Amino acid sequence: MNIAIIGTGSVGQAIAGKLSSLGHAVKVGTRDIAATLAKTAPDAMGAPAYAMWAKGHPKVSLGTFAEAAKFGELVINAASGMGSIAALQSCGSANLAGKILIDISNPLDFSQGMPPFLSIVNTDSLGEQIQKAFPQVKVVKTLNVVSAPVMIDPSCVPGGQPSMFVSGNDATAKTAVSKFLKDWFGWADVMDRGDITTARGSEMVLALWVRTWGVVQTPIFGFKVVR
Amino acid sequence: MNIAIIGTGSVGQAIAGKLSSLGHAVKVGTRDIAATLAKTAPDAMGAPAYAMWAKGHPKVSLGTFAEAAKFGELVINAASGMGSIAALQSCGSANLAGKILIDISNPLDFSQGMPPFLSIVNTDSLGEQIQKAFPQVKVVKTLNVVSAPVMIDPSCVPGGQPSMFVSGNDATAKTAVSKFLKDWFGWADVMDRGDITTARGSEMVLALWVRTWGVVQTPIFGFKVVR
Repeated sequence: MNIAIIGTGSVGQAIAGKLSSLGHAVKVGTRDIAATLAKTAPDAMGAPAYAMWAKGHPKVSLGTFAEAAKFGELVINAASGMGSIAALQSCGSANLAGKILIDISNPLDFSQGMPPFLSIVNTDSLGEQIQKAFPQVKVVKTLNVVSAPVMIDPSCVPGGQPSMFVSGNDATAKTAVSKFLKDWFGWADVMDRGDITTARGSEMVLALWVRTWGVVQTPIFGFKVVR
Repeated sequence: MNIAIIGTGSVGQAIAGKLSSLGHAVKVGTRDIAATLAKTAPDAMGAPAYAMWAKGHPKVSLGTFAEAAKFGELVINAASGMGSIAALQSCGSANLAGKILIDISNPLDFSQGMPPFLSIVNTDSLGEQIQKAFPQVKVVKTLNVVSAPVMIDPSCVPGGQPSMFVSGNDATAKTAVSKFLKDWFGWADVMDRGDITTARGSEMVLALWVRTWGVVQTPIFGFKVVR
């Protein structure tokens, strides 16, 4: 499948690398190709500079947001929460229309230091804002509740797989994404939580996630719904 | 131990009944004793009217908020989130001073219908507001992330015990409460999350909890931190 990844950071790299290794044609989208390739330092999350990473992933191509979105039969938003709406606008509505958009972003605002707070919360969510801004797109919120290594390999958590949540208004899109999660990454406990308003809960759990990271001292964890 | 339970609803009843059965002297506090005893209908959460419940728990006494707080060596806040600060003010600061206060409340506002939203969120929490309002009290936020039956018997969850979180500024109080959780209710995975600001995360997870209830169709579930 031709897949677009919006965002060049640790999440974008992890997803792009995994999907490419599975034989998919992957194009990563960025705001400014030259600037992205000029970077040499790791990002704030410890992800290597894109050009360094790309050397080990020669089959993954890089393009503008619009080029990537046009290329993808499926589009995955791995941009920062604060930059997601702008990045998707740069993709161009016509390049997104009718497609499934897997939204991994979280509206985390780091401008006041650690821990981050949520710039959208409680009675709204970033998932909903994206769906409203792009009504012709089938937004499916998922994967945002774990770190990048866990997203692509949930069995790497020593204590067992977390649960994964799926939120969205389009039932067919959610069924397709749930199958992707199982087939591509091995997610065993995928829970359809309902419409896109249920993204509020899965985004708000980031407040719990961030401080849990501080306690367990590793990003290799997640939340399992035991029932 | 002499224990005060603030609140007569499903959480107060569950905790009071369990602690009484363990041999503790329990006094439940209410705003208006006569009004509480006059009720005959179950509450919105399905808890029986207090007088009906009390018939099966003759060792549990009922008093005003202040009488209960004065009686308790330990005080447990099981009032509604919206009513907690007022209930604790009615307890009287002098009756609470120096004691551990286990805070189970969640700032859920049902005034706009279902699902409820959080009246305090993101950059503050009800746990913090209670600690600020009663600086001489050792507030420990816990148990608020599961339903009443799970609070007192976490092993009732068929898929395994959830994790339980403890937040508070007083390390000794957290250690004592963590031991209570294990000894009284059988909690096996109690996680000290840090100071009372970490109550933000455990209160915000209610947004996830409420919608998960809708999916799993039972309140007998919880979130386990797999790591």
